[in-house]
Amino acid sequence: MVPALAELVEHLKSLPGIGERTALRLALHLMKRPEESLRAFGDAITALSKLSYCPECGMVTADGLCPYCSDPRRDSTRICVVESIRDVLSIESTGDYKGLYHILGGVISPLDGIGPADLNISPLLERICSGSVSEVILAISRGLEGETTSFYVAKLIAPHNVEISAIARGVGFGDDLEYTDSVTLGRAIIARVPFKL
Amino acid sequence: MVPALAELVEHLKSLPGIGERTALRLALHLMKRPEESLRAFGDAITALSKLSYCPECGMVTADGLCPYCSDPRRDSTRICVVESIRDVLSIESTGDYKGLYHILGGVISPLDGIGPADLNISPLLERICSGSVSEVILAISRGLEGETTSFYVAKLIAPHNVEISAIARGVGFGDDLEYTDSVTLGRAIIARVPFKL
Repeated sequence: MVPALAELVEHLKSLPGIGERTALRLALHLMKRPEESLRAFGDAITALSKLSYCPECGMVTADGLCPYCSDPRRDSTRICVVESIRDVLSIESTGDYKGLYHILGGVISPLDGIGPADLNISPLLERICSGSVSEVILAISRGLEGETTSFYVAKLIAPHNVEISAIARGVGFGDDLEYTDSVTLGRAIIARVPFKL
Repeated sequence: MVPALAELVEHLKSLPGIGERTALRLALHLMKRPEESLRAFGDAITALSKLSYCPECGMVTADGLCPYCSDPRRDSTRICVVESIRDVLSIESTGDYKGLYHILGGVISPLDGIGPADLNISPLLERICSGSVSEVILAISRGLEGETTSFYVAKLIAPHNVEISAIARGVGFGDDLEYTDSVTLGRAIIARVPFKL
């Protein structure tokens, strides 16, 4: 293989979930693109090194505070605690939340060797201690590990006079009961709510 | 989302088989890499524009003839006709072929609007007409469309005094008969060969 192509295949292969064949397919697909398109793509990858993480919440930022933490229109009395940056973007896409975020960067998972010390927790406590926060919303999913993490975070926050809530759990809107896992379905029945007419 | 991140996500999304979520996952994964690694990756993409296709066989090349066509140690009397660049690399990985290649760039597929005129065929005929070729090996798979294409190419080559062969078809080495498609299995029985003790 031509060295320049082989090199790109190696780079593409280094991405998670992309194997040798897919990497080659992608590289050959890219070869058909015009020079300016390739340059823009290449520059976009190189430009990532200019980004960093928000010191307050852990979100991706170009410089200093992230777009959420630095937005004065957002409700800074509420902090939604999530596992990952992707969770922030998922919640943002709903348009139903206007508060701030805090990204833990993972969940407690002893089997994977991830303990509380590996999570980004202290900046959250600092913000809570500063006194401007009135509610912390736990939005950590992922089953048992997520619950363990929620419990751990809640215990840490509890002594500080803030309301602690968690996102509602239950059967998804439009989900088929037949294909809903039994833990979710069982808990949804136990946690049933009055039907409003 | 930070513009620099959003831009890279758009570029990644433009690749075949990569959706919004995967693109975001890949971009966030890349963000963790050091600057020099990102620069090397970015440069590798930009460098693709320096590559072109071999005027003889259609393979990727840095400049002029491809590494196969310009290698004097290869048997230039044999040309293996394949559908794609990836097929060349697959055959090369076997180590069982030392001749040259010819890449058609597709197969005849009326349903997809691909006719013989859309394939890279004339450089193959030119090489055959030059007189140095003694054998053309048809290695075009992909079922009916591949057979149609093989038949079409063979008809074009037939008047020129060259041997025309096709790769052996049958049940793959190590394949389970139970999971072999019935066309392959049926033909393998019809085309049975004497068992050598």
